[in-house]
Formats: sequence, structure tokens, C-alpha cells
Amino acid sequence: MTYKRRDFMKTAGLAAAGVSIAGSQRLNAFSNKNIIKGNNSKMELTFKPYTLQLKHVFTIATSSRTTTPVMLTRIQYDGITGYGEASMPPYLGETHETAAAFLSKVDLSQFADPFDIENILEYVDSLAEKNAAAKASVDIALHDLIGKMIGQPWYKIWGYDKNKTPNTSFTIGIDKPDVVRQKVKEADEFKVLKVKLGRDTDKEMIETIRLVTNKPLVVDVNQGWTDKEFALDMVYWLKEKGILMVEQPMPKEMRDENAWLTERSPLPTFADEAIQRIPEVVAAYGAYSGINIKLMKCTGMREANKMLNLARSLGMKVMIGCMTETSCAISAAAQLSPMVEFADLDGNLLIGNDPYEGVRVIEGRITLNDTPGIGLTKV
Amino acid sequence: MTYKRRDFMKTAGLAAAGVSIAGSQRLNAFSNKNIIKGNNSKMELTFKPYTLQLKHVFTIATSSRTTTPVMLTRIQYDGITGYGEASMPPYLGETHETAAAFLSKVDLSQFADPFDIENILEYVDSLAEKNAAAKASVDIALHDLIGKMIGQPWYKIWGYDKNKTPNTSFTIGIDKPDVVRQKVKEADEFKVLKVKLGRDTDKEMIETIRLVTNKPLVVDVNQGWTDKEFALDMVYWLKEKGILMVEQPMPKEMRDENAWLTERSPLPTFADEAIQRIPEVVAAYGAYSGINIKLMKCTGMREANKMLNLARSLGMKVMIGCMTETSCAISAAAQLSPMVEFADLDGNLLIGNDPYEGVRVIEGRITLNDTPGIGLTKV
Repeated sequence: MTYKRRDFMKTAGLAAAGVSIAGSQRLNAFSNKNIIKGNNSKMELTFKPYTLQLKHVFTIATSSRTTTPVMLTRIQYDGITGYGEASMPPYLGETHETAAAFLSKVDLSQFADPFDIENILEYVDSLAEKNAAAKASVDIALHDLIGKMIGQPWYKIWGYDKNKTPNTSFTIGIDKPDVVRQKVKEADEFKVLKVKLGRDTDKEMIETIRLVTNKPLVVDVNQGWTDKEFALDMVYWLKEKGILMVEQPMPKEMRDENAWLTERSPLPTFADEAIQRIPEVVAAYGAYSGINIKLMKCTGMREANKMLNLARSLGMKVMIGCMTETSCAISAAAQLSPMVEFADLDGNLLIGNDPYEGVRVIEGRITLNDTPGIGLTKV
Repeated sequence: MTYKRRDFMKTAGLAAAGVSIAGSQRLNAFSNKNIIKGNNSKMELTFKPYTLQLKHVFTIATSSRTTTPVMLTRIQYDGITGYGEASMPPYLGETHETAAAFLSKVDLSQFADPFDIENILEYVDSLAEKNAAAKASVDIALHDLIGKMIGQPWYKIWGYDKNKTPNTSFTIGIDKPDVVRQKVKEADEFKVLKVKLGRDTDKEMIETIRLVTNKPLVVDVNQGWTDKEFALDMVYWLKEKGILMVEQPMPKEMRDENAWLTERSPLPTFADEAIQRIPEVVAAYGAYSGINIKLMKCTGMREANKMLNLARSLGMKVMIGCMTETSCAISAAAQLSPMVEFADLDGNLLIGNDPYEGVRVIEGRITLNDTPGIGLTKV
């Protein structure tokens, strides 16, 4: 695997930012070798842009694409390295440039102790209003670092049970029937398939899939339905077809209609586009059965875990989702997965150039390992 | 310090319970010496009753007393010992007998790994509907154990900042004016005093205290006011007297009246009797400015931290309170204190026979130490 220097060079103003840049190094420079331990160590954040190559053209209700820009981060402290990642699908508004500009502002050397997590992440959050993925890339690297310092994976630090991880769904994108059939066959390992709906071909998609498999399905409407009666009819139809749940059935702005649907729906509804961070979870209470937590939208593992516990406290279900991401962010998200009803952590399986190895899917199930930190087994 | 065997003997049925009992041992048998480390270690819970002797007669709106029964617990695993405690003031319905009966049912040997916290505490919680303090005594010992295994105090594992701990209030009980004056003088070290109100002598109490000190005060009405207009008048009067906040102004059943008061109150209101565990925090949302979290009511540190984050997510303030407790449970509660607006952790300072040393109050402020676990420095 070789890093594309032109990708790195596209990010403007890095050299002037006073943050050391690993962008021109090969990834194996991210190893811990040759680093001298010191008692007065300070945290040092470095980052480099990377572009994920998708195995298939990725189509959702509003767009198609073949690549996803990510920013790979690391925090070094006292000879230990924590790894993080920002994944930035274009519809969320972040780019290599915005992430680099944000990360250049982050000065962790002011904090004496990585364990000062609440203060550190509050500071990172305060640097800009948006940049959720860039913030997550710091949060994940910090968690990886602390887990390694403690010598435990985060699922254990949080007290969760790795025997309770769910199956992950595997997304079958919207496509022509013959391509869909081929994708379902390729997804043989997975116990639950996820189908993107929200177009005028919804029933055709489901029926096409049902021609080749009877596996349980989850559907993500991506706000694609705009009529609540139609949505309710669809949900009843979907239930008959063996669908387990419906994600973001109607536009997030239609809170009352989503609440109306949830009240009547024979399937649980999950808020996705409606959810960013903690305040949106409170707002979703009463309008959806559950929430979809994504590290790249909520600024990382710490807020994700708070959202998980908040949703549980409010009697809501939880799913954990992702963008197209490397095994870094996927492994981080997987640490929460013992506590969720549904997981959609297939993002690393959709790319052809994952630079990491970490938490794996084995026979369709998220399988946590005991590597300290976020669970990266190869960096 | 000597344990009173007669206290221990009062608890019935222990020998038959299949749980090893440390009650007839001296407390220094709780040290880690002479324990052989093993790789196939199982957690072993032991407990012994103890009776706290209060320095002053303790009077609240509904009762007076001079002792508090507690149950001291420990969990041993792989040569490491975690310490816990149940404090059981009589009005909460637990006793040495109920705690012993509950703890005799707890079989931790079925869990291979102490880090399996969510499962372990779910199991403990499932053993009985009530017994919150007895449950907390397991939770605290488990947290102490895990912190020691990790080598970190819990405030750090939670990512909190020990520089943000608040002053603790110190309670001045309801008494005759000359006794009150003496108590205020004895409380010279404390920056915030807490006054129990809710009798027909409320104004007299405050005025008596104001004769001898201008320190900021917090007041705990213990549900003592029953008329909302009277309560609002009192709150305005209290604000003029330099009071910072009002705890449980009216009976917990009067949710609407408490909400009416909170909406109009110039001081923040805190739910105390209205709060037990997570569901009551959700119910208190909109009716109080904040909540008082007590380990003995909420089953321990894990649920307390969830309640803290829940309240924060709902935009509510948080205080952390206590019963009369040893330094064990106080130190455990103090781990959360960097994240609260008010702390009322004086319970160990009110007793004359504290068997432990732990988190201290220095110049009125809760001062965390870096001892791994819950912060016990002497056991």
C-alpha cells in the first residue's frame, strides 16, 4: 500500500500550522519503534489524508460515488500511539481540506494527561461548530491511546460483554436486478442484509432480493418517503416480507409524521439523519423507536457512549452505524456494539484499500478482540 | 478499632448462606496479604455488618438518630481486593438483616471476568426489587476491584478532571440556637453549609446561622413545604439570605407543584426524595432544575454515572449526596464529583468510628487522590 502524496499535498496550509505532519511518511512510520519513552511526554497529534476506494459504486437515495476521503490520525504519548480516523462522505460537508484545517488547530500539548478526556474533548469540540468527523478522529485516537495505557479494550473498560455483539447487516446498494442478485450472493456470510430504499423502486428491490434469499432484512429509507400514510402502508408490506426494522422513513424535518408512523408501525423505526449528537437524541424521544449512532456524526466514542446510555435511559433502542471507513473507525464503533439491537458496521468491508486490521466480522457477527484500545490488530 | 461481634451475630442466617463471612474477623483481615494469586481466580464477595456512631444526634424533618447501620463488603479476585459499603439509614427500609440476606444470594463465582460489569450488575439488580444500598455495596466493591486491576482511580477511567471537584457542603442539623451556633463554628473549614429546613422554624434557623456566618448556604427542605405559594415566598426570602439552591422543596408526589415552583424560582431546585434511579431522572425532567444522586439509592457508581450523564443530556444540574457513610462509599461518590455543581459528601465527617481513610476534604474542597479504584488510602 502506498500513500498518494498528491492527496496529501492537496491539503492546504499544513506546514504552517505548527502540527507535525505524517502525510509524507509511509503508514509503517505509525509504528511505535524508535520512540523514546519520557516521563514528561506530551500528546502529539498527527494526521494524513487517505482516499478509500469502494469495491462497488455506492448509491443512496441522493447520490452515487466510488471513493470516500478519510483522514488518518494518531496521537503519540509516552511511547504509545493511538490511532483515529475521520471518514468524510461528501454529503456531510467535510473534506481533506476542512479536516486538515481543523486538526491543525488542535493543540494537545497543553494537556498533561491523556486521561483528562472530558476536558480534552470539550476543548476539541470548542474549536469549531461543525467538523464532527475531524473531532471524531481525535476522540478515537485518544481512546485508542488510553486503552493501550490501561492495557484494556474499550468494551471492557465500559463493562460490556463481547459475547453480546450482534450480527452486522451488510448493505446491498440500489442497482439493477441482476447486479442486486450478484451482490446478495456475495454477501453469503452475512446473517442480516440492509437495503437502501426511498426510491420509486422499493418494492421491486425487496422482491428482487426475496427471489434469492430469505434472510432477515433491515431497510434504510434515507428520508425517502414523504407521505405518512404511504409510509405506514409500506411498513406493513415490509413486515410481511421479513423486514426487521425501518431506518429514517421520512425526512428528519417531519418529526410529527415520523412520530405518527412510529406509534402505528408494526416495525421499530430508527432515526438516522435526524440524529447528530446528544440534543437530537432527546428530540427524537417519542418520534422514533430508536436511534442510529455514528461516530462520524457524533464526534466520537465518548459522545456515542453517552448517547447509547441516554437512549437506553429513555427506553429507546439503539443501532450503531458507520460511513465507509477503515477498520480503525469500525473497530472503535464495534466497542459499543454489545449494547445495541442492530449494528451496521460493514463500512470497512466495502473498501479495497483498508490500511488497518481490527475487529472482524466472523460468520456475520461482530467479533471483538482483546487488543487494548479500539481493537486494531495490525497498523 | 474493634468490630462488635454482637452486631454481627444479630444478622440471621449468614452461616447457612454459602457465602464466606468476614464478620467475625478483624477489619485488617481485609488486607491483601497471604492471598495467593491464581490464574483461574473467581470473584468472592464477603461482607460484615458495622454500626456507625454519629458525632451529633442527626435530625431531619421526620426523625432523629445517633447511629447508622452499614454493611462493609469486599470482593476478592486474583489477589486483589475491592471494598464496598451499604449505608442504611432506617427511613430507607434496609437493615443489617435485609442486606445480609440479599448479599447471601449474590454469587459472583459464576462470572469469569470482573470487567463484565454490565452483566454482573444486571444480575445483582435482578436478585431483588429493592435493596438499593446492598446492591451499591457490590457495585462499589466491584469498581474498587476493577480500578485496582487497571491501576487507575475511577475519576480518571471516566475521564474527569480532579481539578474540578467542588467544595462539599457540611450539614448543620436542626437544633436549638446555641447548639446551631456551636456547630457552625465547628464547621469553620467548610466553604458551603447545608441547612435542613422544612419545619416551622425555617427562618429562625437561617437567621441564627446568619448571626454567626455569611458563608453561602444550601438548604434541604426534605419535602417539608406543602404549599407552592409559601414555597415560592420562602425561596425568594432565602435568595436574599445568600442561599445558593433548594433541595426537594415539596413532597415528591407533588410533581406539578414542584414544576410550578422551579419555573418561577430564583434559585435552582434539586430533586432528592423524588430521585432513586434512572427512571426518576427522566420523570424529574421539567419539574426540577437538577437532581441529587446518592449511591445508596441508585445501586452504586455505575448507575450514578449514567444518571449524571442523563441529567447533563437533559440540561439538568447535578449534585452528589450521601448518607452517613464511611470513607469507603464517600470516596466512591467523590469520583463523580468533578462533574457536579454541588456536592454534599460530608457523611464520613459526621461519624466517630470510620474504619477507612480515603478521599479527603481539604479546606472545604473534595480532594481526589490517585489511589487506584475508589480512592481508599487506608483499609
